[in-house]
Amino acid sequence: MSNISVSLKELAKLTNGELTGDANLLISGFAPLETAEKGDISFLVKPGQVDKLDAFAGSAVIVPIAIERSSVPLIRVDDPYLASAVIHNLLLKKAFVAKGVHPQAWIGKDTSIPEQISVAPFVSIGERVKLGERISLESGVVLGDDVEIGDDTIVKANVTVAESCRIGNRVIIFSGAVIGSDGYGYATDKNGFHTKRPQVGIVQVDDDVEIGANCCVDRAAYGVTLIKSGTKIDNLVQIAHNVVVGENCLIVSQVGISGSTTLGRNVVLGGQVGVTGHITLEDGVMVGAQSGIHNNQKAGAQVGGSPALPIKKYVRAAIQYGKLPEMSKDIRRLKKQMAALTATEEEHKGSTE
Amino acid sequence: MSNISVSLKELAKLTNGELTGDANLLISGFAPLETAEKGDISFLVKPGQVDKLDAFAGSAVIVPIAIERSSVPLIRVDDPYLASAVIHNLLLKKAFVAKGVHPQAWIGKDTSIPEQISVAPFVSIGERVKLGERISLESGVVLGDDVEIGDDTIVKANVTVAESCRIGNRVIIFSGAVIGSDGYGYATDKNGFHTKRPQVGIVQVDDDVEIGANCCVDRAAYGVTLIKSGTKIDNLVQIAHNVVVGENCLIVSQVGISGSTTLGRNVVLGGQVGVTGHITLEDGVMVGAQSGIHNNQKAGAQVGGSPALPIKKYVRAAIQYGKLPEMSKDIRRLKKQMAALTATEEEHKGSTE
Amino acid sequence: MSNISVSLKELAKLTNGELTGDANLLISGFAPLETAEKGDISFLVKPGQVDKLDAFAGSAVIVPIAIERSSVPLIRVDDPYLASAVIHNLLLKKAFVAKGVHPQAWIGKDTSIPEQISVAPFVSIGERVKLGERISLESGVVLGDDVEIGDDTIVKANVTVAESCRIGNRVIIFSGAVIGSDGYGYATDKNGFHTKRPQVGIVQVDDDVEIGANCCVDRAAYGVTLIKSGTKIDNLVQIAHNVVVGENCLIVSQVGISGSTTLGRNVVLGGQVGVTGHITLEDGVMVGAQSGIHNNQKAGAQVGGSPALPIKKYVRAAIQYGKLPEMSKDIRRLKKQMAALTATEEEHKGSTE
Repeated sequence: MSNISVSLKELAKLTNGELTGDANLLISGFAPLETAEKGDISFLVKPGQVDKLDAFAGSAVIVPIAIERSSVPLIRVDDPYLASAVIHNLLLKKAFVAKGVHPQAWIGKDTSIPEQISVAPFVSIGERVKLGERISLESGVVLGDDVEIGDDTIVKANVTVAESCRIGNRVIIFSGAVIGSDGYGYATDKNGFHTKRPQVGIVQVDDDVEIGANCCVDRAAYGVTLIKSGTKIDNLVQIAHNVVVGENCLIVSQVGISGSTTLGRNVVLGGQVGVTGHITLEDGVMVGAQSGIHNNQKAGAQVGGSPALPIKKYVRAAIQYGKLPEMSKDIRRLKKQMAALTATEEEHKGSTE
Repeated sequence: MSNISVSLKELAKLTNGELTGDANLLISGFAPLETAEKGDISFLVKPGQVDKLDAFAGSAVIVPIAIERSSVPLIRVDDPYLASAVIHNLLLKKAFVAKGVHPQAWIGKDTSIPEQISVAPFVSIGERVKLGERISLESGVVLGDDVEIGDDTIVKANVTVAESCRIGNRVIIFSGAVIGSDGYGYATDKNGFHTKRPQVGIVQVDDDVEIGANCCVDRAAYGVTLIKSGTKIDNLVQIAHNVVVGENCLIVSQVGISGSTTLGRNVVLGGQVGVTGHITLEDGVMVGAQSGIHNNQKAGAQVGGSPALPIKKYVRAAIQYGKLPEMSKDIRRLKKQMAALTATEEEHKGSTE
Repeated sequence: MSNISVSLKELAKLTNGELTGDANLLISGFAPLETAEKGDISFLVKPGQVDKLDAFAGSAVIVPIAIERSSVPLIRVDDPYLASAVIHNLLLKKAFVAKGVHPQAWIGKDTSIPEQISVAPFVSIGERVKLGERISLESGVVLGDDVEIGDDTIVKANVTVAESCRIGNRVIIFSGAVIGSDGYGYATDKNGFHTKRPQVGIVQVDDDVEIGANCCVDRAAYGVTLIKSGTKIDNLVQIAHNVVVGENCLIVSQVGISGSTTLGRNVVLGGQVGVTGHITLEDGVMVGAQSGIHNNQKAGAQVGGSPALPIKKYVRAAIQYGKLPEMSKDIRRLKKQMAALTATEEEHKGSTE
């Protein structure tokens, strides 16, 4: 799968790791512990699983710093999960091979095509589109007029980027995603008819963002719907008009974010979360799966449930939820007992008066 | 952005507004208050924000009737939000420019193409398709055999309309939407194998409907899955076979409506709502985001929660949800106290006997 | 709609049914009771609806065994719903008509095309792709390099199957579905930057599976994301990397299944269900709509709610949910009464000492 070889020494340097074993050993592949072969490097996250190295058939292993030695060559790091990603990416890295523009692609007028580009069959590029270097546009991609796309960006098959939207560098947009559909905005008259509010803004996707398959990012009513750099969006996510998603957020599958809501940096939204419009989730907010967020959230807040509560409160409440029938029975019994007691009490009073 | 100029007088007439200022002033653009320039009209919704007009650099403002005068020319209306949509649409209106059929599009046999049409590259149109006037089909659109599309309809890039489905006039279907996929219907035998039930109906989308990006509307098992006129559907919505959606409904993103359910007029479903099959939501029903609807709802009902409750009841219940752990503790304490009291009572009885 | 004729005798034999009426009667169509015409067969599920046969204008009806006779020819079966599906499919069955490869399709090198195939305009097939017999690829389909597709499989318009994924026999993939997008996997460093973990596995879809419109099935990080035979997936479903879905599962619309989770055979997930990662739902588990599953589920478990509870417990709890405000009030009153009683008790004690 890989066609380069890198010495263990270089890999250790790249990951700030400590090396045990032959520094000049060449690594050319990456595989899980169980399936690694000669030339492969693997990784192990939990120190307690060190025994797994006994049956290892590959050449080297990335391990947590707590594992001090082994008969297998090791790169010892603080975070083997991260180091293995860095090394795996390096081993898979290929020089960009420009395939040029396929004769069955369509390029609109006043769009100039860089030399280093791959445009597959049945790609449709609008007019006045600006394209960076080393872009890959797969089959069925449609870029509207005046779209801009930065360097090293990959647009997978059947993606639509509508007119005037701007995509940064090193972005990956997965198949079926739609960037720049109209925001959902209407004004309703007394008869219940809805008049469309024109959606004249754009979508801007900054560098190093990933947008999952079949996601929808709506263009702003005015101005910009903005996905800031480093944010990773899973599949089937809905991002409404004028939303701002901060840097390095993680937005898991099937989340919906309503219009004009702002997310700070490193916000994490679990799967199927819904966020109402016109609110702010500050830096580092974490939201549990399936939650519904109706209010502003302070930096670092961890919330869950619909409507959302602080996560610890939510967990405690969720546990009690299943006990509701029991609680209800208890209350009924208490009321009966109380009625009986009060009656006796009245009697007492009567008798002692 | 706009290429027509309209006098303030005409705009006031169009919106039933009262005019203050120069009736012959020409307006050629629309912009938010903060960014408007000479020639632009803006709007202001809240009377309390009248101070914002002081720094206004545009030419006129649509305001609520309560704002009586200003140094800025005004159109005073009952509903500035609606009036601004009407005016903005007018200013953006362009005559349809027919681009004809691109040589890299494909037209099936027995499909006749009107003169006033735009068919982009890589559009695939089936056999016996009926097309109205001034239709725009963007790149990657696929129309199956026997599809019908009315006048002035826009089908955005990469939309699929499967065989025999019927789309009305002035409809907009956003990118990636799928109209006429098979309904989800199976019969299961004793061994747990599922036999597909043929889905031989169609989808009919009436006039002035919008269907959001990556929506799915399934064809009927028999007959018609029907979206009536004026309804606006947000992105990533699922509409199952044989559903009927009434006129002028608003269906927010990621809603799912199960098979054979009927919605009346002006029903509003919040984001991520789920509606079970074979029920009826009468005219004007409003459902809060993330709710789950399992039962018929009377006209005008407002509900929330999963399973849904009347909205006021739901809101009160949701507030108590977070207090469940406290309630549970209270009940435990009350039971203990009750046990103690009852014991004392027994004692009393013993001692007074 | 149909172009073959089959005798009632043959249809009865096919469905293990008992025949009343003319065994040689030829049936050539299938229609609902209300709209059936001469030559059509219909079906009726509930014995209590036998009166509906009086106005029947078709030729024969599939009925439950409990209906013993009628003036209409009958096929009496255990499960009319299933039998009608089997018969309807037979009547609709058409011989595959190979349209060949459209001149406006693109075939990559080292891909060989079987004689019996239909490849529509603007289909893009990668290199080294392996295609079975009687495959239909609709317009806008993109197959990546090294994809494999079995016999009699239908890939609807605008579907993407990314590189190296394997699709079985008699599979249907509906429009807009994306098979083989990258799994959502990142390693985060101390500064909050996310490094992509390479996703080098594939998706394998076994025989007789249906995958709904705009679904997403992610490729494995390593190894295989697997959908086993006979499983039917509704629209807009998300299946994450390394998930295994067992045989004959039913996964309703808008479900999300997180990474590395395993489903056994005949698992049923209701609409909008979310399932967390790295858990197992054993054979026959049934999950109510909108539920959230966080834990392993034993074979046959029936659960509902978020977080999920055993279904009966969930239903009882959900009923109490709406009564929370009342319960809260009861508890407050009880506490007050208890405080009063305890005070009196203290008094008593005082007075009797």
